[in-house]
Amino acid sequence: MEGGDSCSPSMANMDDGEVAWRFGAKNPALAAASAQSIRALVYGMYACVDRSDPRPLAPLGHGDPSPFACFRTAAAAEEAVSAAVTSGKHNSYTGAAGLPEACSAVAAYLSRDLPYELSPGDIVLTAGCNHAIEVMMAVLATPGANVLLPRPGYPLYEARAALGGLEFRHYDLLPDKGWDVDIEGVEALADDNTVAMVIVNPNNPCGCVYSKEHLAKVRSTKERMCPLQETARKLGIMVISDEIYDHFAFGSKPFVPMGVFGDIVPVVTLGGISKRWMVPGWRLGWIAMTDPKGVLRRKKLRLKQILESIIVYRGISVDPAAIVQGAIPQIIANTDEAFFIKAMNTMREAAEICYQSLKGIVSITCPHKPEGSMFVMVKLDMPYFEDIHDDIDFCRKLAKEESVVICPGSGLGMRNWLRITFAVDPQLLEDGLDRLKSFCLRHAKFNTKQAT
Amino acid sequence: MEGGDSCSPSMANMDDGEVAWRFGAKNPALAAASAQSIRALVYGMYACVDRSDPRPLAPLGHGDPSPFACFRTAAAAEEAVSAAVTSGKHNSYTGAAGLPEACSAVAAYLSRDLPYELSPGDIVLTAGCNHAIEVMMAVLATPGANVLLPRPGYPLYEARAALGGLEFRHYDLLPDKGWDVDIEGVEALADDNTVAMVIVNPNNPCGCVYSKEHLAKVRSTKERMCPLQETARKLGIMVISDEIYDHFAFGSKPFVPMGVFGDIVPVVTLGGISKRWMVPGWRLGWIAMTDPKGVLRRKKLRLKQILESIIVYRGISVDPAAIVQGAIPQIIANTDEAFFIKAMNTMREAAEICYQSLKGIVSITCPHKPEGSMFVMVKLDMPYFEDIHDDIDFCRKLAKEESVVICPGSGLGMRNWLRITFAVDPQLLEDGLDRLKSFCLRHAKFNTKQAT
Repeated sequence: MEGGDSCSPSMANMDDGEVAWRFGAKNPALAAASAQSIRALVYGMYACVDRSDPRPLAPLGHGDPSPFACFRTAAAAEEAVSAAVTSGKHNSYTGAAGLPEACSAVAAYLSRDLPYELSPGDIVLTAGCNHAIEVMMAVLATPGANVLLPRPGYPLYEARAALGGLEFRHYDLLPDKGWDVDIEGVEALADDNTVAMVIVNPNNPCGCVYSKEHLAKVRSTKERMCPLQETARKLGIMVISDEIYDHFAFGSKPFVPMGVFGDIVPVVTLGGISKRWMVPGWRLGWIAMTDPKGVLRRKKLRLKQILESIIVYRGISVDPAAIVQGAIPQIIANTDEAFFIKAMNTMREAAEICYQSLKGIVSITCPHKPEGSMFVMVKLDMPYFEDIHDDIDFCRKLAKEESVVICPGSGLGMRNWLRITFAVDPQLLEDGLDRLKSFCLRHAKFNTKQAT
Repeated sequence: MEGGDSCSPSMANMDDGEVAWRFGAKNPALAAASAQSIRALVYGMYACVDRSDPRPLAPLGHGDPSPFACFRTAAAAEEAVSAAVTSGKHNSYTGAAGLPEACSAVAAYLSRDLPYELSPGDIVLTAGCNHAIEVMMAVLATPGANVLLPRPGYPLYEARAALGGLEFRHYDLLPDKGWDVDIEGVEALADDNTVAMVIVNPNNPCGCVYSKEHLAKVRSTKERMCPLQETARKLGIMVISDEIYDHFAFGSKPFVPMGVFGDIVPVVTLGGISKRWMVPGWRLGWIAMTDPKGVLRRKKLRLKQILESIIVYRGISVDPAAIVQGAIPQIIANTDEAFFIKAMNTMREAAEICYQSLKGIVSITCPHKPEGSMFVMVKLDMPYFEDIHDDIDFCRKLAKEESVVICPGSGLGMRNWLRITFAVDPQLLEDGLDRLKSFCLRHAKFNTKQAT
């Protein structure tokens, strides 16, 4: 029988008399997963903040503009959920795919941007897009399989893959090429056990939007080339397109859903209302099969096991709140286009403020002006600093000294980079970036300080 | 490179030209878990229902009274969530333990029934009690560990344990002893790798409430004996007390939370608002550490890894909807006691109707009158039937012929038993049970039919 941990068995016995508790060992899969937790990483930075600092905390570490008045969700969305609650009709359990009328509404909503119609059966509702990621990583975790993930990326993919024993391999996003995918790298990484690749578009953390030229070159109406999709087809792998930032494209490139090219390879699109409606706390996401050729539905083929497995996993997992599911048709129908236009205008201005401020900090390099999502990746010029060891040290000291929270790039696979969100109130954003600049100057080496 | 499944590789190639898709294999852990899915089992029964049957479907297969007017949630609860939505204050991400004011409110609520005060830090909010089960099974899944589960039970425990590779062993609940725990069986099952045992009280599926005599015999104020807790202490294992049906005790025995005996062994209590407030669709549950001696918080002991692991897992898992979390203080404060009294009175009447109807069916034995939760377990007297192979066959034919859905006991570890819920509108319940009786008579062997 096991005692306490090896360093203090006597203490365990002392406290509990004869009791030698058997529980309390670490789950190694969970430990591996937790090493990938961006949430724990960002929380760690909040813990460094000096609570006696009278200045407002500048939360530039995670993408949630909802606390700011300028980013409050549409009144129509709040009214829709309120009506769903007071109707008394959405207090019950919902099915493993979600409420049929909600699936229907999401299918029609996504079909607006596709050259074909999705059916309600193509949609599985989830408790936010993070849950959609969880479902897909669980479904793909077959023995020996591997999945290709972007670097920098969104580490919940790595965390959920690690928990399920799914191997992950990183392909690079190229900062000098506007964070385009290193397609040659993808081909070099894949082997016979590669089952899927994940694309995030618009991209968190890089703030880029993949151009139609990158996704596909339309040579003629009949013949077209799509580098990413053609690569996936050549490799025989599925594309998981994380489009939680759909329509967050405020630069020159429009948002093009990967499902447009679903006839080349089946695309499993992950999304939700968290970002576009600015309600991440409502936890309503989806998995959409954008698969016009029906590859995932073929009878007698094992491919359809993907679909079945998604439902199976959802059946033993959590459901999104029925009161939000029940409101989805009205949320989509009643939200005025003006809400989205205003939100994107504010986001564009915030991105501009962010980019211009960062250009004024000599020790930070921003390789690509943000044009989508809520983030930008910037590089720390480490030789410039006197007493900063790495990006994590940078972020801890910044939080402590300036009450500015930023996510260190190490958590996203990019050491000595930072992920900064601009989705905060513009005035607080400017203030936070000013503090970032002061911090950089204060920690500069004497020589570089003089040079600036 | 793999092609389609082994029986039709040529078909895969025919449909996709040169494409040999690599994805689509079955995840064996997920397959093992899905074999334990009660949801899939009950859905399967719904699929058997003849949609042309003009009679209303009698849903006696799962515990969700919320669709019925007599079980509609308290107006105060609906108003609280509606106010949280329209405040615009609960649209944001919440922390990995949940909204602090909600944790606080739950701690105070649970403390009402305990001889000591829980603190907000003892509470972790989850997206329903199912999610709490998921978290605990993930946390305990250390290599080689096993957990003791009740039979009959709630198969999500088995499903989530299987998914995480946690071994489970079944101890029996004894129908002839009012479904009390077979304590000798628990001791015989446990070994050095047993880390926890799960108790469900009030009990799903048996409808029993564990008496204070079973949980503990108070000999004097100083000296007391608690068979279950003392057994757990002797074995050095943690008790997970699933109290999602807390206060659903309408017989002679009051509901006693296991946390009352938390000074003997630490109790991790799982609960939520789904049942007591009749809002399973809102998905708000909790994990509460009822551990007055602070065993799970000891510094330098590995035991506190349980607490840390719960937060770690929640950090890479889903959150309950912030709009429900934000409403929790008002839901608890503003729901009138009269709502609970009325609900329990209706539930008591429904249980009585159920018990009396079942007594009138000669081929079904009900060993224990339900006095808690929403369920009763009954035994099929198989020799009585002409053309029924087992409980699953029984339930399929019943759904098809009578539009009555019941959960077969096989899904809960009890072949040729049935789990029946009485938490439906009393009139529909009577009607459904009448149809059950007709069905049993119609499928009786000729001899037994004459005898009845």
